[in-house]
Amino acid sequence: MEQLSIIKIGGNIVENEAALEQFVRDFSHLPGKKILVHGGGKIASKLAHDLGIVPKMVQGRRITDAETLKIVTMVYAGLTNKTIVALLQAHACDAIGLSGADGNTIQTVIRPVKEIDYGFAGDMTSGSIHTERIKGLLNMGFCPVFCAITHNKQGQLLNTNADTIASALAVGLANQYEVSLIYCFEKKGVLRDITDEHSVITPINRANYQSLKEEKVIVDGMIPKLDNAFDALAQGVKRVIIKDATDLTNKQAGTLIQP
Amino acid sequence: MEQLSIIKIGGNIVENEAALEQFVRDFSHLPGKKILVHGGGKIASKLAHDLGIVPKMVQGRRITDAETLKIVTMVYAGLTNKTIVALLQAHACDAIGLSGADGNTIQTVIRPVKEIDYGFAGDMTSGSIHTERIKGLLNMGFCPVFCAITHNKQGQLLNTNADTIASALAVGLANQYEVSLIYCFEKKGVLRDITDEHSVITPINRANYQSLKEEKVIVDGMIPKLDNAFDALAQGVKRVIIKDATDLTNKQAGTLIQP
Repeated sequence: MEQLSIIKIGGNIVENEAALEQFVRDFSHLPGKKILVHGGGKIASKLAHDLGIVPKMVQGRRITDAETLKIVTMVYAGLTNKTIVALLQAHACDAIGLSGADGNTIQTVIRPVKEIDYGFAGDMTSGSIHTERIKGLLNMGFCPVFCAITHNKQGQLLNTNADTIASALAVGLANQYEVSLIYCFEKKGVLRDITDEHSVITPINRANYQSLKEEKVIVDGMIPKLDNAFDALAQGVKRVIIKDATDLTNKQAGTLIQP
Repeated sequence: MEQLSIIKIGGNIVENEAALEQFVRDFSHLPGKKILVHGGGKIASKLAHDLGIVPKMVQGRRITDAETLKIVTMVYAGLTNKTIVALLQAHACDAIGLSGADGNTIQTVIRPVKEIDYGFAGDMTSGSIHTERIKGLLNMGFCPVFCAITHNKQGQLLNTNADTIASALAVGLANQYEVSLIYCFEKKGVLRDITDEHSVITPINRANYQSLKEEKVIVDGMIPKLDNAFDALAQGVKRVIIKDATDLTNKQAGTLIQP
């Protein structure tokens, strides 16, 4: 099967001009078919703050109300996405920026209201990734660049976690391509000691993941990221790596996740 | 030759929820291949105002400085473009939202500085419209929805007039398709008396256009719009119509521009 790299970059890279410039250069040199997924980061929070919009939180979770949806659509699908696309185009990578609404590439459902009403948050279903459309764009030679906005095919844009989009794309395309899913962020990988960049844990498999969680070495935001990674592997994704965005071209770098 | 409709809607339609909803419904029912180009309107001005950014004007012309470029990229390429795309998708029109940077579909040059430095304004050249890429998307069954943002292929996003984008697309695609270029706005057409919606002038040809300008019946923003229209006809576009966005499906409505 043909290889496909799906690479996710977090908000910290998007906001750091020098890091983004280096990432874009490295990404554009990656051989083969590829897809980029980006977060939005603090630009959206800053814009909301500048507009006097107070983040709506329930039980510590952010709620996407109508005003917040406008903000994230402006920042993720507009400013961030087009800035990255224009930079990639300058580096001879034929990027095409997409939300899930564009070409109906990713169709989600509004998160059901249980204890919390998350507002305009979009959840993936098994049929969310419209692979033939994405494959068509890849076959035209384009490199899709996805922001973290999807839609429900009923006219509603929805805010969707970028990590989830990346793993859903990887799983959705795993029966058509040999998919490598690479989560890039500002650290060298999953660290044993958060203050020591040399303490990268690699590989992580289901067995040592369980112990690392019990020892509280792996906590907070890394847990859903790794859960996503194991799910992706279980559903046919060939390899998952968590690494520093500035180490993209170093194949040995980062934490390799194994089944 | 296969028919292609290129339809431009102005900011007043985009901002009016009921008008946009009707337009989207009518547009989605138009048969054949089609492209939508949209302006951004006052949402960008309102956002700039809310953020305390004072419009930079020189000799009455708006300048796109770095802050303004961020605003229009957020509003045009983000909020407006994705709102329209999601609505079209809900009406079974397979829309894909694009800036000129996306898939390098429209490549412009920064407007040369003469008396005025317009900042990040993008001007069309004869090779700006990359027809094969747009044709490829049309052949995939997509309906491209262009916002008024382009790029220079060197990493710089540029603010570009939406009317100009529409006519450049029409001209660029005229040797591949039988192109109808339709400018939609909030009036019934070019009016003899701006206060009388029944005073639509049709047709307008080069001869009566000259007299209408001399009589000051046609003034202000309508002049560049009609100049664009005549240029488009001279360069192979089959027909140009200026009409009310809510009359899209009425083939007799509006002002027909003739060579």
